[in-house]
Amino acid sequence: MKTVLVYSGGLDSTVLLYDLLAKGVETHALSIHYGQRHRRELDAAATICKELKVEHQVLELPQLQALFGDSSLTNTAIPVPSGHYAAENMKSTVVPNRNMILLSLATSWAIALKADSVSYAAHSGDHTIYPDCRPEFAETMNQAIGLADWHALRLDRQFVDTSKADIVKLGIELGVPFDKTWSCYQGGELHCGRCGTCLERREAFYLNGIKDPTVYAPDAPSLESLIANNWNIDA
Amino acid sequence: MKTVLVYSGGLDSTVLLYDLLAKGVETHALSIHYGQRHRRELDAAATICKELKVEHQVLELPQLQALFGDSSLTNTAIPVPSGHYAAENMKSTVVPNRNMILLSLATSWAIALKADSVSYAAHSGDHTIYPDCRPEFAETMNQAIGLADWHALRLDRQFVDTSKADIVKLGIELGVPFDKTWSCYQGGELHCGRCGTCLERREAFYLNGIKDPTVYAPDAPSLESLIANNWNIDA
Repeated sequence: MKTVLVYSGGLDSTVLLYDLLAKGVETHALSIHYGQRHRRELDAAATICKELKVEHQVLELPQLQALFGDSSLTNTAIPVPSGHYAAENMKSTVVPNRNMILLSLATSWAIALKADSVSYAAHSGDHTIYPDCRPEFAETMNQAIGLADWHALRLDRQFVDTSKADIVKLGIELGVPFDKTWSCYQGGELHCGRCGTCLERREAFYLNGIKDPTVYAPDAPSLESLIANNWNIDA
Repeated sequence: MKTVLVYSGGLDSTVLLYDLLAKGVETHALSIHYGQRHRRELDAAATICKELKVEHQVLELPQLQALFGDSSLTNTAIPVPSGHYAAENMKSTVVPNRNMILLSLATSWAIALKADSVSYAAHSGDHTIYPDCRPEFAETMNQAIGLADWHALRLDRQFVDTSKADIVKLGIELGVPFDKTWSCYQGGELHCGRCGTCLERREAFYLNGIKDPTVYAPDAPSLESLIANNWNIDA
């Protein structure tokens, strides 16, 4: 089995990478710079692939920014909101149709490599804000990818019904070096500890009852205050 | 109605552009340099959009070439084959999953513009060689595009069951300046008159019984010899 993994260098796709390798799947990792505010996760992806001796291709496509309008993840004029994903203001972190772009690029490479599948780590916690993380989107993309070439190709989206907490649980079993992954939208020297993806990350470790190895910025809200405020930092 | 048109500057998408404008659709044209051998069709697209006062965005993504392996359309080390599309050797002109990439990029822009649709000009003659020109691929992409955002968006692929000859017929009715469009894979000063897309173009005019306004290279096979050899230039 051979796959092309859409690899951000974040927590979810790193667990998926470890899982694929544990299952003996020949994995080629593709990371895309699509104009996101910072390169922290791309650097994390490169470091981890190098250690695992996984082929890693980084496509530099900052020009794509011109398509995305007012996403706070690609337009530095718009501040990244603080708070949990569930909050209305997190909508500015939507990058329109990002997943279809990433999957289409990975599919091209998969066809050229004669791989059996394209893998990506969309998970169940992503749905409420991101339309292109819904299981029905993934299922339709699986069909489209299956028609993109004459030989059979499928979309492996094994986390689509899995929670972030369960991904962390799997990662613990697989010995994933979580401290080397990058999640934070801000891209500072340390994880900010207060943006949507930082809160989700912190909560996932908390729900597993294990210590989060991530070093957060000194002004990040404390775990105790987050729990007390039901993960709402604006309360 | 508002649409984003995947616009190559070739014959088919130019006829579609004229048709959309004739129907009063607000059209935004997107051209992609994905590493194709030459820029002749991108230049054609720019000229035509300027004349029509259509907003035109050109995305320069030559880096995508790294994904495509051995396509003769993007890898200059591989010669473009001569002859009709039906011939086996034309398979080298497949750019793996090109249409999904183009559609995914157009969809991002369509979401940002709050457009109603994405339009592209895949036609019935494309199917035999290009898997991503099949009607079932287009239908599945229509579903995926419909799930890519919370607001409704659809894929307009009105030529998917139309022959090239019938596209030319529609273009004649709409007054399309065919001489300003570019089809040839080679990208020389003039259309080569012998690659798959040149032959298809010549045949489409011939089937309509009208003179092809395209100026072909002096060494191109004559129309008479093509007809005599049943459009097979190797015979």
